[in-house]
Amino acid sequence: IEWLRARGDEGWVPAGDASTDDLASVTSDRPAAEADLVLSLGGDGTMLHSVHLLDGASVPLLGVNLGRLGYLTEVEVDGVRDALDRFALGADAGGWTLDERMMLEVEAIDPDGRSVGTWRALNEGVVEKQDSGRTVHLLVRIDGEPFTSYATDGLIVSTPTGSTAYSLSARGPVVSPKHRAILVTPVAPHMLFDRSLVLDPSETVDIEVIDGHSASVAIDGRATCSLSGGARVTCRPSTATACFVRFGEHHYHQVLKAKFGLHDR
Amino acid sequence: IEWLRARGDEGWVPAGDASTDDLASVTSDRPAAEADLVLSLGGDGTMLHSVHLLDGASVPLLGVNLGRLGYLTEVEVDGVRDALDRFALGADAGGWTLDERMMLEVEAIDPDGRSVGTWRALNEGVVEKQDSGRTVHLLVRIDGEPFTSYATDGLIVSTPTGSTAYSLSARGPVVSPKHRAILVTPVAPHMLFDRSLVLDPSETVDIEVIDGHSASVAIDGRATCSLSGGARVTCRPSTATACFVRFGEHHYHQVLKAKFGLHDR
Amino acid sequence: IEWLRARGDEGWVPAGDASTDDLASVTSDRPAAEADLVLSLGGDGTMLHSVHLLDGASVPLLGVNLGRLGYLTEVEVDGVRDALDRFALGADAGGWTLDERMMLEVEAIDPDGRSVGTWRALNEGVVEKQDSGRTVHLLVRIDGEPFTSYATDGLIVSTPTGSTAYSLSARGPVVSPKHRAILVTPVAPHMLFDRSLVLDPSETVDIEVIDGHSASVAIDGRATCSLSGGARVTCRPSTATACFVRFGEHHYHQVLKAKFGLHDR
Amino acid sequence: IEWLRARGDEGWVPAGDASTDDLASVTSDRPAAEADLVLSLGGDGTMLHSVHLLDGASVPLLGVNLGRLGYLTEVEVDGVRDALDRFALGADAGGWTLDERMMLEVEAIDPDGRSVGTWRALNEGVVEKQDSGRTVHLLVRIDGEPFTSYATDGLIVSTPTGSTAYSLSARGPVVSPKHRAILVTPVAPHMLFDRSLVLDPSETVDIEVIDGHSASVAIDGRATCSLSGGARVTCRPSTATACFVRFGEHHYHQVLKAKFGLHDR
Repeated sequence: IEWLRARGDEGWVPAGDASTDDLASVTSDRPAAEADLVLSLGGDGTMLHSVHLLDGASVPLLGVNLGRLGYLTEVEVDGVRDALDRFALGADAGGWTLDERMMLEVEAIDPDGRSVGTWRALNEGVVEKQDSGRTVHLLVRIDGEPFTSYATDGLIVSTPTGSTAYSLSARGPVVSPKHRAILVTPVAPHMLFDRSLVLDPSETVDIEVIDGHSASVAIDGRATCSLSGGARVTCRPSTATACFVRFGEHHYHQVLKAKFGLHDR
Repeated sequence: IEWLRARGDEGWVPAGDASTDDLASVTSDRPAAEADLVLSLGGDGTMLHSVHLLDGASVPLLGVNLGRLGYLTEVEVDGVRDALDRFALGADAGGWTLDERMMLEVEAIDPDGRSVGTWRALNEGVVEKQDSGRTVHLLVRIDGEPFTSYATDGLIVSTPTGSTAYSLSARGPVVSPKHRAILVTPVAPHMLFDRSLVLDPSETVDIEVIDGHSASVAIDGRATCSLSGGARVTCRPSTATACFVRFGEHHYHQVLKAKFGLHDR
Repeated sequence: IEWLRARGDEGWVPAGDASTDDLASVTSDRPAAEADLVLSLGGDGTMLHSVHLLDGASVPLLGVNLGRLGYLTEVEVDGVRDALDRFALGADAGGWTLDERMMLEVEAIDPDGRSVGTWRALNEGVVEKQDSGRTVHLLVRIDGEPFTSYATDGLIVSTPTGSTAYSLSARGPVVSPKHRAILVTPVAPHMLFDRSLVLDPSETVDIEVIDGHSASVAIDGRATCSLSGGARVTCRPSTATACFVRFGEHHYHQVLKAKFGLHDR
Repeated sequence: IEWLRARGDEGWVPAGDASTDDLASVTSDRPAAEADLVLSLGGDGTMLHSVHLLDGASVPLLGVNLGRLGYLTEVEVDGVRDALDRFALGADAGGWTLDERMMLEVEAIDPDGRSVGTWRALNEGVVEKQDSGRTVHLLVRIDGEPFTSYATDGLIVSTPTGSTAYSLSARGPVVSPKHRAILVTPVAPHMLFDRSLVLDPSETVDIEVIDGHSASVAIDGRATCSLSGGARVTCRPSTATACFVRFGEHHYHQVLKAKFGLHDR
């Protein structure tokens, strides 16, 4: 930040995110949405946090990797100054592009049809069992039409970005981040039909809790609310996207290959 | 029960299981283990309950199916009198056999090495996440030797009988009930190695919670205790078995075929 | 056909498809592409045959189901006359729509870079082992960039329509037919990374045979050619689509539900 | 071999396996079954070859690894002399054990009930499609009783040893090599029931080709014969076992962990 000021730029740390005294002087209540660029220092979890902080504002986000290789982060810590210099030059001169990622809008609706809350997810919204040993019964509707019901540990509604997160653990497919689609993957469903569904972004997915056991809703790994019988969540693409600064091509394939130990030959 | 008395036999209903006044007069605190035969009226869930009631006593159990086709129940309600007559004739004259099923002994051990409790499972013991959105980190040891750790929703340690229950939902194999083996199946593990393990009954499986998030233990679908970091469960075959009365052959294949819509051609 | 003539319409049967003498008089070499509507009498296999017969011509196709429930067929045999009457009224008055399905263009290229042949697939193109017991080694490139290599029984490159065909057997996801995407699903790959890939229709998939064992190419279930080491196939969306006449909504969900025994509750 | 002679032991190379002139002088027609120990120089494929060469004789086999880490090999090439010295000392003094592995006896029977051939498999017997694009229809019987039929690319009948070979590629479970069981795993079956079956070694598996498309039989990766409609194979545990010399414990877990990149924490 000292260095940013020396260059004539401004920087600040969101209130609540400054975990040490050293950063207190630059902490600000100024919203992240006013920034030209948000730097995320950490891993993919920090990137998710930064995206939620932006609350849908189309501010470019640059992920600086402080830990293990991430799907979302772009540069290592010793490349930050160079990256910021290139970003300041503009996309053409700096040789960077914006990698826009689809997000989901997840709305919880109580049994009386009232909206309980709306959240934006970069990875996924999950409706899952609340109590150990008790599956939940969930009815999936596609564009309002009943598709099928599941007795299951949970259902994951995921973006292409989220296809390498929780959905992958539940054996869902890997979706190209260039692609726009909605992925529905069940977790340990008590039935033989256990395939993921890949839906068009024009389609809306609605999940209703259809019996007595309550379900939890988690957005990008954070519990948000509980749904009793008759309550439901509706998932559709958000009008907002997450914008990541990229300095090269094929970032995504390289991360996949490194993560999964894939080889060209 | 009236009819049993008329035949000179005795019958009673365990205290706590008589849900209506009509049965109150025959309710008894006499332990189920003293019976010659336990009748389970209901479905597979009721069978599990009856097995737990017997607490390892080797009393034959006859499952009377009141609901959907079950893996464990043997006769429909209108076949009960005939079944009891045949049972009373003895195995040879009555044409029945005992179908003995392996059970698991699951012991929970706290971080200081003290036993917290021991349970017997006909289907499975599960160690799973407690909080929505938070995987647990579990280390599996086989015969005391570390095998691998999982960041996962849960791990299912199952008997052959339980291979068609929760383990099947998590894509585990179907194990012949004639066979003795221990099945370890992960639920949505965050890694590519997601196969079930089939172990010999001479092998012991130990699951340790290896980081801060606590885990729940469920035995045959009922939550029993919580494990904090450093606590573990040990699973081995129980010396007790569950004994089901069978009047014919191939019961198991027929139920599988009916449940899964399998055809011979 | 008698009945068509009585209505003043013409009908003919493609040469080679008339299996009995009765149809000989109406057999014609006139290409199917000149028709206003092609009737496919049979099951999904016959629909595939009809689509291939049209060779990319955008002629509406009406599937008349003579066998088991199909994904592609639309009417039962006793509904044909009514369906033809409604078709003749036009889309608005007749209450029908065209359900346009993406097809793949699959080109085989020899080790010297020469095109060996190009085929159009409604379901899938498959590159697979030729000899019992011998896996093939295949390198997948996405947009020309190496992704990973597989030692595998085969790789399936599928359309959304084909997601319920061979790809489903290999545990691929079910893709909405409204959606445009390319699905790559491995068959029994000898590696832990066995997930399907869902790619954007703007992406091109290239599969190269990278060692001595030759591979077979099959298009919609028919073997077309053999690839030796260094040869490859390239798959991209075809500019042509298949057009199916539909008289109602939700056809697709209903077929899925019937095929898989899915329930709303 | 020079070194063996110097120690007063004898060694020879089976006729047909001496690929270079250097070995010609020590090539012999003397059967491998007369040896005290068979050395297998290569990888797991060579081990399979050595096991087949022994044809059921209970001669200890020592696998010397010349390539990638193997499940079956035991020592690296620079450990051979030490290993042979320890072997010569006997099991107690030398600190080695015999790791006995179950094998399968696979018999092919023509439609008239005549035996066509019998083979012994250390890994698996496979019945699979012969022609690209054409699934085979196979009926599985367990102990003579029809279980279900599969429209499938193939069925793998595997030993515990084979559970980490082809069956794993088809998503079968990993079976402890200490355990005796028969594993049946379908390859891309066209049905939702795609789970592996784990059977008791007392159970016999019979696979019949039930329609016109012929099937191939492969034993441990080598094609052996073709089955037309009505022909079948019968699989049961062989009375012979394969005996591998082991110098330490936990070999199996260590190989699994290395192959799959598993970690203890």
